[in-house]
Amino acid sequence: MFDLNAYLASKQETINFKLNEILDSFSDGGRIFESMGYSLNAGGKRIRPILSIAAAEAVGGNESMVLYIACAIEMIHTYSLIHDDLPAMDNDDLRRGKPTSHIQFDEATAILTGDALLTLAFEMLSSLEISKNNTPATCLEIIQLLAKAAGCQGMIEGQMRDILSEGKDLAFRELESIHRLKTGALIEASVCVGAVIGKGNEEKVDMLRTYGKHIGLAFQVMDDILNVSGDPSLMGKAVGSDAKRGKNTFPAIIGLSRSENVASRLVETGLHAIHGFDNKADPLRAIARYIIERKR
Amino acid sequence: MFDLNAYLASKQETINFKLNEILDSFSDGGRIFESMGYSLNAGGKRIRPILSIAAAEAVGGNESMVLYIACAIEMIHTYSLIHDDLPAMDNDDLRRGKPTSHIQFDEATAILTGDALLTLAFEMLSSLEISKNNTPATCLEIIQLLAKAAGCQGMIEGQMRDILSEGKDLAFRELESIHRLKTGALIEASVCVGAVIGKGNEEKVDMLRTYGKHIGLAFQVMDDILNVSGDPSLMGKAVGSDAKRGKNTFPAIIGLSRSENVASRLVETGLHAIHGFDNKADPLRAIARYIIERKR
Repeated sequence: MFDLNAYLASKQETINFKLNEILDSFSDGGRIFESMGYSLNAGGKRIRPILSIAAAEAVGGNESMVLYIACAIEMIHTYSLIHDDLPAMDNDDLRRGKPTSHIQFDEATAILTGDALLTLAFEMLSSLEISKNNTPATCLEIIQLLAKAAGCQGMIEGQMRDILSEGKDLAFRELESIHRLKTGALIEASVCVGAVIGKGNEEKVDMLRTYGKHIGLAFQVMDDILNVSGDPSLMGKAVGSDAKRGKNTFPAIIGLSRSENVASRLVETGLHAIHGFDNKADPLRAIARYIIERKR
Repeated sequence: MFDLNAYLASKQETINFKLNEILDSFSDGGRIFESMGYSLNAGGKRIRPILSIAAAEAVGGNESMVLYIACAIEMIHTYSLIHDDLPAMDNDDLRRGKPTSHIQFDEATAILTGDALLTLAFEMLSSLEISKNNTPATCLEIIQLLAKAAGCQGMIEGQMRDILSEGKDLAFRELESIHRLKTGALIEASVCVGAVIGKGNEEKVDMLRTYGKHIGLAFQVMDDILNVSGDPSLMGKAVGSDAKRGKNTFPAIIGLSRSENVASRLVETGLHAIHGFDNKADPLRAIARYIIERKR
């Protein structure tokens, strides 16, 4: 029987160690590095890098092949959180129970810290550390995948549309499209990157892409649900903030119980996409179920 | 006799056309693209992409080899201006006589637009458009060069230190180091990128790096000088804003006339580094002189 908690804890420990080792290798000890380290160590669940590693493992690769790249993905994710939390964006003072970057430091530092983490991700992805074990063409493919997912046709477009839709009535399909971009795109890319670096063949990469696409959307639907019905002490922040801000969420549009059904069906579809994989994909299967069972 | 004005005008036209063509190829017509286009078309001098092209030409390459990459560099530069102008940073309402991004749109849009331009640059640099004419290894080298120059050991670190030093007394060497990072690093990288893509040999790339390093710093010294003594109608913004904000500048530390001497000497050193180049480097020579003669 696969023990997901042990798996997540072990991967989190590995990722946390590596993230700090990488940051130390760049740091001159100045404020920007202090702030980058603060946000990188603010208690993230490391879902995206873990998905990369698990996807690599599912196609016969291993953790060490993908760890450095997985850390670059977590840097991209962390940058997006810092910028989303800014006063001009979601104006959140707390994340995972800790002051957000602009509260702990200041707004200018938070903006630059996000910029620095995003840029560092691409510096890492084009570094010798990766190209010594992968062909330059594969490195470029990974950069393209992640830049697309994080960019103006992916995560940033989703965030822009999300902000523009505040206080407006959205149709289900429109919200789905925003969530796919805002959260789904980077999760899908994280899975694909792992599959590519783990040397999965094209067919397997496609199956894993489908898996990533569906669980990525499920993850955001569940975030919406937890924002309504979650336990603040587990979430590390107040619940109900989406409703207060007039945010469009799945529960607001289709209700809580239908949202839960949507999340469940997405996870089932994701699982179906990888049903032909052997037990090396068990971590991916367990993570998919965890996404809709998690409490924070 | 080499006609710099005609050269600059011609390159600006080519770059402006290409920038918009590229943006159109990504755009869905939404707000983020509108805002990206607004800032990209806000009257920039295109110094960095022109330097890339001129460096490629100096080693025997041509404009078309480097144009797409040069546009990615201008996207990185434009992102940095948008974020620098934000209320939490330099709080500038005008740039080149036009409202800055957060004034024309809003702060959230400006933050996302900067993020989008930075990410798009890396999406472009890892695209087929570039890899069809360059080896994947060269593409990676370019990404590495630019990410380093723009990142937490380059431009962002310079901006962070610049903000931290506001209102404090800096020694000449400290300010020089900030200016090298804040402005010099990306200019130096622009020249190097052009030299590499133009297929310059290692020795020539090194000479051009030295050229770029010195004129990059001269450019920022001249910016400081123009902020004190420039003509507001040519600059498109008020002069004296640096002093008002307690910014450390070369004129504030060593006076106007010694600052002009420093800029001149930097340009001379830059010119000396490429004295062995033939007349294909004449544009680079003229640009170096233009940097200290410009009025805006």
